[in-house]
Amino acid sequence: MEIISENKCFDGVQGVYKHTSAVTNCDMTFAVFMPSAAEIGPVPVLWYLSGLTCTHENAMTKAGAQAWAEEAGIALVFPDTSPRGDGVANDDAYDLGQGAGFYVNATQTPWAPHFQMWDYIATELPSVIADNFAVDMDRQAITGHSMGGHGALTLAMGLPGRFKSVSAFSPICHPSASDWGRKQLGAYLGDDQSTWAQHDATLQMQAVGFDGPILIDVGTNDQFLDLLQPEALAAAAAKRRAEFSLNLQKGYDHSYFFVSSFIADHISFHADALYRD
Amino acid sequence: MEIISENKCFDGVQGVYKHTSAVTNCDMTFAVFMPSAAEIGPVPVLWYLSGLTCTHENAMTKAGAQAWAEEAGIALVFPDTSPRGDGVANDDAYDLGQGAGFYVNATQTPWAPHFQMWDYIATELPSVIADNFAVDMDRQAITGHSMGGHGALTLAMGLPGRFKSVSAFSPICHPSASDWGRKQLGAYLGDDQSTWAQHDATLQMQAVGFDGPILIDVGTNDQFLDLLQPEALAAAAAKRRAEFSLNLQKGYDHSYFFVSSFIADHISFHADALYRD
Repeated sequence: MEIISENKCFDGVQGVYKHTSAVTNCDMTFAVFMPSAAEIGPVPVLWYLSGLTCTHENAMTKAGAQAWAEEAGIALVFPDTSPRGDGVANDDAYDLGQGAGFYVNATQTPWAPHFQMWDYIATELPSVIADNFAVDMDRQAITGHSMGGHGALTLAMGLPGRFKSVSAFSPICHPSASDWGRKQLGAYLGDDQSTWAQHDATLQMQAVGFDGPILIDVGTNDQFLDLLQPEALAAAAAKRRAEFSLNLQKGYDHSYFFVSSFIADHISFHADALYRD
Repeated sequence: MEIISENKCFDGVQGVYKHTSAVTNCDMTFAVFMPSAAEIGPVPVLWYLSGLTCTHENAMTKAGAQAWAEEAGIALVFPDTSPRGDGVANDDAYDLGQGAGFYVNATQTPWAPHFQMWDYIATELPSVIADNFAVDMDRQAITGHSMGGHGALTLAMGLPGRFKSVSAFSPICHPSASDWGRKQLGAYLGDDQSTWAQHDATLQMQAVGFDGPILIDVGTNDQFLDLLQPEALAAAAAKRRAEFSLNLQKGYDHSYFFVSSFIADHISFHADALYRD
């Protein structure tokens, strides 16, 4: 693991790091915020998965999360959203290929050799984090924005016991029924839609649910609300009688101005779950 | 208006009053909490509509609302849930007739002469409150529990501009598709379901919506969750892009132990809306 940069930030350290991934077969960059509490002992971890076109950098610089993570004594991990580089397949569209990994393990040509983001987030990067930072991997939570909200929800439900809590800003809630989803799941996983189900938060809520609290915030002026379909996830959560909160926040859109307005609520929500035991 | 009782409570006054209603053609009892702030000037009003089998008394004694209403400087009004008395029609079932007015104006025999709860809550009782208490009727909000949550939501949407905010605990959200609703709307309003629509919060959300914030809390262990259908209202709110929060609260049931656990949140929510201007 190579240190790209480390900056003091709210008494903690905001770092950017690079490593060679055996899962995505390329170099991967990620960011970690370590609160000052980590100088005393291992701290809980909150994963933040980003949306379409983002790298490790967007949330690190625009979400305003570090102040609250310092206060709560929680580490933040900001992974990249896809493999990258000249040798990695891509597409001219913003919503497929590099910057648009959708947190799945691709099985289809030309994506399969590198686009293994599920395993990268679920297995490889956690090992790197556990080996290099003062974190308590028995206390993890996960959040994300848009495509990253989709990733947070599906990883939380797909890895039972891993995360104490899950939240999302403006998540893609039902990708197998959305233009943000059908194209990408088809490209990465093929036409057999039975392989898509584990990557659809609404279908996962119907099938397996989540053993912990769930918090979703979406802006009522979100220009992509029809693509996100939070109502489908809310219906599945109510049917399952899950511990679930959906807030439709008046006047907010899909941007990081929305994320930053509610990041304190989300970190407080996760802190409650992470420090419950 | 006759004073039945007045008790000092959290520096304010909890009163119970009786008047002869020209709308329901019988004596009606109601309760009002006036915070100490009303000694200085008119205060905003939060209406609390109760559920099946309740009178004016249940929420007054079990919701724990007065502490927070005093702190926020908001008056509370607790109406009865139906006309009552020997001359008033009734049914052996707990969910029809006395204690089960469903906040509609009945058009059918034998209910029509007395069961005019919509007009009673929308028109007559507000006049009594405005004439007898130091309240600011330009700042009103409404909440309720179960059948009263149904009443709060449908009155809020049916009286545009009246209420700044609406909330509900465990509300009946889609009565025209529920066993808590079809029986009563049929009995009171007849078989023509076009007359039911204005008394169905989900259908009203689809048709007209609400110009203000909406907060719904429901317990995941609510024994009546299948009858309440909060997911139907959430779907309609999301489609409309309404300002709307739904919290499925883990482990709570349908009782006043649930209401009392979250009443502080609801009064704080309404205080934000009532003091916004």
